Amino acid sequence: MPNRRELANAIRALAMDAVEKANSGHPGMPMGMADIAEVLWNDFHRHNPGNPKWFNRDRFVLSNGHGSMLQYALLHLAGYDLPMRELEHFRQWHSKTPGHPEAADTPGVETTTGPLGQGVANGVGFALAEKVLAERFNQPGFDLVDHHTWVFLGDGCLMEGVSQEAISLAGTWKLGKLVMVYDDNNISIDGEVPGWFTDDTAARFEACGWHVIRDVDGHDAEQIKAALQAAKDETGKPSLVMCKTLIGFGSPNKEGKESSHGAALGADEVKATRDMLDWRHAPFEIPQDIYDGFDAREAGKKHEAAWNALLDKYAEAHPELAAEFKRRMAGELPTDWAAQAQAYIAKTQAEGPEVASRKASQMALNAFGPMLPELIGGSADLAGSNLTIWKGSRSVTENGPDVNYVHYGVREFGMTAIGNGLALHGGFIPYDATFLVFSDYARNAVRMSALIPAHSIHVYTHDSIGLGEDGPTHQPIEHLASLRYIPNNHVWRPCDAVESAVSWKAAIERRGAPSCLVFSRQTLKHEQRTDEQLAQIERGGYVLHDPADTQFKAILIATGSEVGLAMEAMRHLADQDIPVRVVSMPCAEVFDAQPVEYREGVLPGHCRARVAVEAGIADYWRKYVGLDGEVIGMTTFGASAPAGVLFEKFGFTVANVADAVRRVIG
Amino acid sequence: MPNRRELANAIRALAMDAVEKANSGHPGMPMGMADIAEVLWNDFHRHNPGNPKWFNRDRFVLSNGHGSMLQYALLHLAGYDLPMRELEHFRQWHSKTPGHPEAADTPGVETTTGPLGQGVANGVGFALAEKVLAERFNQPGFDLVDHHTWVFLGDGCLMEGVSQEAISLAGTWKLGKLVMVYDDNNISIDGEVPGWFTDDTAARFEACGWHVIRDVDGHDAEQIKAALQAAKDETGKPSLVMCKTLIGFGSPNKEGKESSHGAALGADEVKATRDMLDWRHAPFEIPQDIYDGFDAREAGKKHEAAWNALLDKYAEAHPELAAEFKRRMAGELPTDWAAQAQAYIAKTQAEGPEVASRKASQMALNAFGPMLPELIGGSADLAGSNLTIWKGSRSVTENGPDVNYVHYGVREFGMTAIGNGLALHGGFIPYDATFLVFSDYARNAVRMSALIPAHSIHVYTHDSIGLGEDGPTHQPIEHLASLRYIPNNHVWRPCDAVESAVSWKAAIERRGAPSCLVFSRQTLKHEQRTDEQLAQIERGGYVLHDPADTQFKAILIATGSEVGLAMEAMRHLADQDIPVRVVSMPCAEVFDAQPVEYREGVLPGHCRARVAVEAGIADYWRKYVGLDGEVIGMTTFGASAPAGVLFEKFGFTVANVADAVRRVIG
Repeated sequence: MPNRRELANAIRALAMDAVEKANSGHPGMPMGMADIAEVLWNDFHRHNPGNPKWFNRDRFVLSNGHGSMLQYALLHLAGYDLPMRELEHFRQWHSKTPGHPEAADTPGVETTTGPLGQGVANGVGFALAEKVLAERFNQPGFDLVDHHTWVFLGDGCLMEGVSQEAISLAGTWKLGKLVMVYDDNNISIDGEVPGWFTDDTAARFEACGWHVIRDVDGHDAEQIKAALQAAKDETGKPSLVMCKTLIGFGSPNKEGKESSHGAALGADEVKATRDMLDWRHAPFEIPQDIYDGFDAREAGKKHEAAWNALLDKYAEAHPELAAEFKRRMAGELPTDWAAQAQAYIAKTQAEGPEVASRKASQMALNAFGPMLPELIGGSADLAGSNLTIWKGSRSVTENGPDVNYVHYGVREFGMTAIGNGLALHGGFIPYDATFLVFSDYARNAVRMSALIPAHSIHVYTHDSIGLGEDGPTHQPIEHLASLRYIPNNHVWRPCDAVESAVSWKAAIERRGAPSCLVFSRQTLKHEQRTDEQLAQIERGGYVLHDPADTQFKAILIATGSEVGLAMEAMRHLADQDIPVRVVSMPCAEVFDAQPVEYREGVLPGHCRARVAVEAGIADYWRKYVGLDGEVIGMTTFGASAPAGVLFEKFGFTVANVADAVRRVIG
Repeated sequence: MPNRRELANAIRALAMDAVEKANSGHPGMPMGMADIAEVLWNDFHRHNPGNPKWFNRDRFVLSNGHGSMLQYALLHLAGYDLPMRELEHFRQWHSKTPGHPEAADTPGVETTTGPLGQGVANGVGFALAEKVLAERFNQPGFDLVDHHTWVFLGDGCLMEGVSQEAISLAGTWKLGKLVMVYDDNNISIDGEVPGWFTDDTAARFEACGWHVIRDVDGHDAEQIKAALQAAKDETGKPSLVMCKTLIGFGSPNKEGKESSHGAALGADEVKATRDMLDWRHAPFEIPQDIYDGFDAREAGKKHEAAWNALLDKYAEAHPELAAEFKRRMAGELPTDWAAQAQAYIAKTQAEGPEVASRKASQMALNAFGPMLPELIGGSADLAGSNLTIWKGSRSVTENGPDVNYVHYGVREFGMTAIGNGLALHGGFIPYDATFLVFSDYARNAVRMSALIPAHSIHVYTHDSIGLGEDGPTHQPIEHLASLRYIPNNHVWRPCDAVESAVSWKAAIERRGAPSCLVFSRQTLKHEQRTDEQLAQIERGGYVLHDPADTQFKAILIATGSEVGLAMEAMRHLADQDIPVRVVSMPCAEVFDAQPVEYREGVLPGHCRARVAVEAGIADYWRKYVGLDGEVIGMTTFGASAPAGVLFEKFGFTVANVADAVRRVIG
């Protein structure tokens, strides 16, 4: 049998050879963390290469995702469906081995990492998911949900502020099954870190309620094993294992230096490293005894089989809980979901409540929440403003089987990245919330929810200058357009309580991908709809009004709070015998994905007399109004004043909209 | 003379009365921090109400900016030009008292705060500015630059990750004249903080190298004074003064509760508070002895006069340094700047280097940097990739008169908000840098640089799928459009070394407002230009090519790396007798601000056969190509592969561009 160092050297060789062949990538981290990874994967990590989606597996997160070859080497060696040819095509078009680990591309990759620090927060989300699910489903004698979350992280992750947000919450939540391993190699891209990173990291984590294991030699398997065991043994707090490592370990001329971080070592240095490590195999050649040393397929099969047997017994003892557990594992909605949700929407249309859409959102939560125990939500310290607490909300800090509400504190980025972890874990539909303007703070995590993709729901209230007196720092302008431009993201901005309910339904049903739900602070009017119009809301855009007996001369397109204004302007123009169509466009992305016939039916190409109205950045709407139309929108920051004053001062008036319509008719 | 509590009660009364009159706002924080503020302003803060821009004043930052009435009350009482009628119009249209403090609106407000945590980072920027300027200009016997930065902050600021980034750097930089005062009131919007904020804040700051003063009774003037003195006496580290306070102090029913945080107390409670505080004056009525107790005008005048005298003597002893100091205080560029910059641009046009635009950016820094000692820059741990280090760069951690380079570590948000502080302080033109995709992490600070506004330069390299193998997590798609949509922001994406130099010149000359400079990873071709074309670059968009003897049938609009592609497609089409105009549009915002005649000259309304080409989100370009044109752009995330493969796979080919042109010609 090869010794531990020889096993670890297989990771090193694969990393340096794959980077060499691609002539790009990051050999330093995999070579530095290889010994740690070997011990973790061979002695602790519980998983099943034959079924990467086995529900009770441990989760492994590579927050320092540039070291992706570490993970690809581990997955390959452990027996995942990641053949050597994929490693030979590292960082190439359509390979399963992209530059950074991507959950959608590679079996066994739990989350997409690379943007530093977010893997740390994803990991906190995984561990929170495990804790809350265990509280919900575990019964005496049945530790059905029982697994660990292992996170590798580097100096960059720790410098990013999002790591502070995440570790602070992990400490508050006492996530005892969360273990993070710090690759303390003293190097970041600019060189040796003391010029820009002098934190006492151990003290910082202890200040956040963590168990810290210091001074582990990251190249001594026994020390690593003892440290990981100590971390696992501490069940009342999350643990940080601090490993001193040499980046690029084994490279005679680049070990310990930044030069091993982000570029191929070069043919000569690869050869010298082979000599130094006494690794006598050709590139991408792994001897059978090394494969044997990593093979986790049999053990994984047994782990899963034992757990399946436990689940069978659990199903006998607790049939209802088991059925519910299986439903949530599968990510299926309750069987009566669609009918009940539709009934609530119809009821809302019939009753026509006139409320702020943030209030309508809360009403939808109250209607849908009791059907959906998988809904887990929270706000970044704006619960009373975002209206994210519904009658079934129970704080996760209370413990108990029905906890489902997360007080994230003022941590928008951490919240959103933790939410992505909850979504990826399975068993949950997470929502997060803040003011729309502060989506900025979370922005890259919103992007990641679309890129991974993850079924996260981002609730953003106070969606325009309608926020009022708090002023321009709190008033979103560019945010609607900026969120819409994130590929694979859906942004809903409903105009009344009915569209609000539909947007929640759409977001809940959009399995495996995110939605942003954007709500007003201020009261919105209710709009009348036929059954056909009601059904069309979920198509993202539809004709809310057409003149009765005559052809329209212009089209008004609006969203959210400006739909009411468009309708008012339409009535004003009708009084002057100018017939106008009004299109409500709660979700442009969904509308754009409709068949061309439908879109042409709503926005016929022959009518270029178009005016868009939205209290967001104007230019976005050029895609619908073109060069001949007009936009009533924002072109500057807002101001501090009551909302009514602001809408008037910034031109959101019937007179202005009507004038624009007259101009485009010509 | 009124006692200290009576002085502080004037702040409380003004805060609760202004919020009451506006019927919106945040009385709790001003009432809680009034005693601290009174001691700081009356016993420590050195400033001149008669000249809010006196260069050597202490800087005061209200990072918990929702408590804006605290600052307005202080400014009014101390004698700034902020009359009582402005306080009576708190949070109203065009008042000088917006909901959150805004630097552009109110004399004495140093920076715009409200988005939590960023004031902390701005404060670090102010303190770094003071330190670096002192090292540059102070001489034996002449402590010309010598002032403190005082920052108030609350729980929300500490929960935000950006605070961690900023305090980590402040500790590394040993900013001994930076004092932060923590309003430790145990309350955030969701209620009492232990449910979501359990950090040992003192330990966390000590872990970052701070001097921490614990357990100060924030309602005991003597304790406050002793603590602030101790903070001032520690000159080797930044200091955190932790004050226990009661939010809404003085309100019998809301003191210590969240209910005092963000809404008017109500008429009854205001009356009860008046009784409790024994404050017997009508709303907005301040007795003369209270005014006398706060009046800082005489003292301020003396401070400034003494300093002016020092400056005069300094000018005799060190005439050249004094002239340079005065130039930088005034924010003026060197007299030979314009000529020399233009000469470099002309030389670059003549020589035509073909380099990546990030390299062209570094060349511009090498050309312009020696003229501009006020340039202070850095990168978030990507110096070697962003190419932000030029031959004159000296790290600020080295100390010395010519330090000008900041190793920010992997802290994009903190970097950008610190840069805003450097810009606002005066004496500097700061630049920051990261990959374009990671502008996401800094996004709200970029927005703030445009809103404040501040003369910050944001350098973003690796500007498209041209980034290559690192994959979609590292490839910007929506970022160009999203940055352009921030009001008052200029985004330059130059197509060659010449446009790169012009973009740097424009950013440097855009006093008082920010620019984003967006550069490629990959090599770009050099474009030929006439003198007229060369001069037109700074108009943001211009005709780079017109067919020689015939009228163009279509217009190709492109930026950055896609200009070369557009030119190639143009030549291909010319060979097929399809004459095409090519417009280079390095900065759409600047182009949009040109007179209509100029814009019409570049993009004549009669020509609707338009194709835009940019390796960013496609829909942005609808504003120029309308409904009849086409866009060759991105509609999905990128992928991991070599750049050349990606450009081809995503359709950035001569054939595709030419086909689009043929289609729009019809």
